[in-house]
Amino acid sequence: MGLIVQKFGGSSVADADRIRNVARIITETYRRGHNVVAVLSAQGDTTDDLIAKAAEINPHASKREMDMLLSTGEQISCSLCAMAIETMGYPVISLTGWQAGVRTNSAYGDARIKRIETERILAELDKRCIVIVTGFQGINKYDDITTLGRGGSDTSAVALASVLHADLCQIYTDVDGVYTADPRLVKDAYKLDEITYDEMLELATLGAQVLHNRSVEMAKRYNINLEVLSSFSGQSGTIVKEVTKTMEKPYVSGVAKDKDIARLAVVGLMDEPGIAFKIFSILARERINVDIILQSIGRGGTKDISFTVRHSDMERAKELLEERQSSIGFDHVDVVDDIAKVSIVGAGMVNNPGVASQMFEALYNAGININMISTSEIKVSVLVNKEDADRAVQAIHARFFSQFGNGN
Amino acid sequence: MGLIVQKFGGSSVADADRIRNVARIITETYRRGHNVVAVLSAQGDTTDDLIAKAAEINPHASKREMDMLLSTGEQISCSLCAMAIETMGYPVISLTGWQAGVRTNSAYGDARIKRIETERILAELDKRCIVIVTGFQGINKYDDITTLGRGGSDTSAVALASVLHADLCQIYTDVDGVYTADPRLVKDAYKLDEITYDEMLELATLGAQVLHNRSVEMAKRYNINLEVLSSFSGQSGTIVKEVTKTMEKPYVSGVAKDKDIARLAVVGLMDEPGIAFKIFSILARERINVDIILQSIGRGGTKDISFTVRHSDMERAKELLEERQSSIGFDHVDVVDDIAKVSIVGAGMVNNPGVASQMFEALYNAGININMISTSEIKVSVLVNKEDADRAVQAIHARFFSQFGNGN
Repeated sequence: MGLIVQKFGGSSVADADRIRNVARIITETYRRGHNVVAVLSAQGDTTDDLIAKAAEINPHASKREMDMLLSTGEQISCSLCAMAIETMGYPVISLTGWQAGVRTNSAYGDARIKRIETERILAELDKRCIVIVTGFQGINKYDDITTLGRGGSDTSAVALASVLHADLCQIYTDVDGVYTADPRLVKDAYKLDEITYDEMLELATLGAQVLHNRSVEMAKRYNINLEVLSSFSGQSGTIVKEVTKTMEKPYVSGVAKDKDIARLAVVGLMDEPGIAFKIFSILARERINVDIILQSIGRGGTKDISFTVRHSDMERAKELLEERQSSIGFDHVDVVDDIAKVSIVGAGMVNNPGVASQMFEALYNAGININMISTSEIKVSVLVNKEDADRAVQAIHARFFSQFGNGN
Repeated sequence: MGLIVQKFGGSSVADADRIRNVARIITETYRRGHNVVAVLSAQGDTTDDLIAKAAEINPHASKREMDMLLSTGEQISCSLCAMAIETMGYPVISLTGWQAGVRTNSAYGDARIKRIETERILAELDKRCIVIVTGFQGINKYDDITTLGRGGSDTSAVALASVLHADLCQIYTDVDGVYTADPRLVKDAYKLDEITYDEMLELATLGAQVLHNRSVEMAKRYNINLEVLSSFSGQSGTIVKEVTKTMEKPYVSGVAKDKDIARLAVVGLMDEPGIAFKIFSILARERINVDIILQSIGRGGTKDISFTVRHSDMERAKELLEERQSSIGFDHVDVVDDIAKVSIVGAGMVNNPGVASQMFEALYNAGININMISTSEIKVSVLVNKEDADRAVQAIHARFFSQFGNGN
């Protein structure tokens, strides 16, 4: 007996059959005595279709009008899901972002939730109604429709779980949980029962796109228990929470790779204070996210600074630096894009020194060269050649995860 | 220099090219110094597609959820039109029904506008913004989305013209005005420059589906000048107003036919008071509209009552009466559906007796038999056999409209 927020992504509501399946999951939860607030994304390709319609008319449409257009996608999936639940004989109502009281700032296309006015949802729950809410959208102070950007529906669900003091926030996707590695790549990869928010954040950053970072950050801040599970399998998934039962947990929770990456090196910089600030403030101003940063030790009065960016930012970052070559003072910018990042993540690493060296040993034994290394309290990342990435994941997974589930 | 409300129907915004065309019409009006509020329907088949999606999931979906679903159609066309206007460099904003302040009663699927809170629209017009408003929709006192039912976008446009004190309300359709008869049927039919509200109401009722009655009634009540014109031709259309310049006008404004009609006769009724009330209150309770009513003179203590209904109501009306045969007291119900109604409409008929007899003469000369006759101050309708309907329209049109435009 409690309140459960359930979020269903675009593939979970892609057609009439899948909407019926989602309706079954929601009503089964309701029948067990829970109140249910379900947050839905737009159906499968709807958003892409709408974007194509807009592009035909105006490839540079204002973000305000794009949000007006795109927000219809969730309104369609939510009303259809409510209709499916009606056929099963349960009380149900669908609500748009503004009807559900989701108030955001005015950053059209990438808005942040400021608050949720819960009166309407609470009134419907009081009537023991199942409430279906459009994900991904809200309204700003002008009463204009905004969308939350990538992973927005996850964020909607977690925000609702927070303001409604939900007992659990279930994120239904097309995978049935968080794995120790990509199961398509690593035969022995297995599903984790639990993972901490921080581990999930690192894994999301590393390209294991199960949950969007914004939603995990919000869940961590408000201490919302998340469950990642599949709308197709019917099995329990992975719980994401603050502290996991470490006794049952390996030091390392997962191995991930990220191929959407490029490495830039600014070569021949003067070895003087403020150089790093100059370089990274230029990139930050243009909203280019920098990941791993490595600064070489100065030799003969010069030094090099290397860093990684998303592949799509590579050219722009190079241009920005070269435009300022004389004011920064360097010899040239070197770019490499046939690389990948492979990482291990684990909250248990903090108290277990030597995890990094075990990882390096596994790579050495597999004959894989390491280009760059970056570590945090719960993560070790290495850059390797792109062609070695899959083998690196397999070698590292084998080192840390035996067939019994934990090789530490 | 004034405020013009322009309404564009589904065929006018069916694809990207047509949306661009609508954007041109709107911006040309704006460039001439007017403020413009444009009301759009959903694109071509969008509403039908959404209805099909709903039917696949729940053929008996609640009207509340249907309105939630269907209202997305106008939101899509309006945002796309705003994007098209953006490419032309004009300030523009699209607004949903609730953003535009359209408040309705709660009759989902067939709601009535109760009031329009104009603050937002006026604020945008003050900024010299072109305002695009979703037709066909509003919200009720629960903040739930409602739709206005058939002809709803016309009604939205006229209601906005009224509360905004617009100088003109232009209804853009795929015909370029109101004709003296269907031009596909009558070679000599010509476009009227002006027509009165009452004439337009009679013509709409008679099946000349140019404007929906609700919008014309509202225009008459609030004295809004309507113009019916084509979004494709670029020519001026027909003005609908209270009083037209009768000097330039024929007694008869138009000839119309309506084939969606059936005639029922309740035969052998007791000739006593209250019989007509009994019959028509039964039908009214079931929302069956009755048009022409004819009561025979009693013979031998019994009488017959004949009346016409929409074709789709024919079977239900017959059933309803037969269920109550013993309480009403009659012999049997006779049904005929191979009939059509042909009518002449004209505000000038009031002061010109003999118009009806000219119409009957034209039919007599064409050898067409008249089954029933109904007259009002500005209309004469006759029922004829369905196969004679087109010839009847042609004969009547030839009688009243010479090649010089007016045969009266």
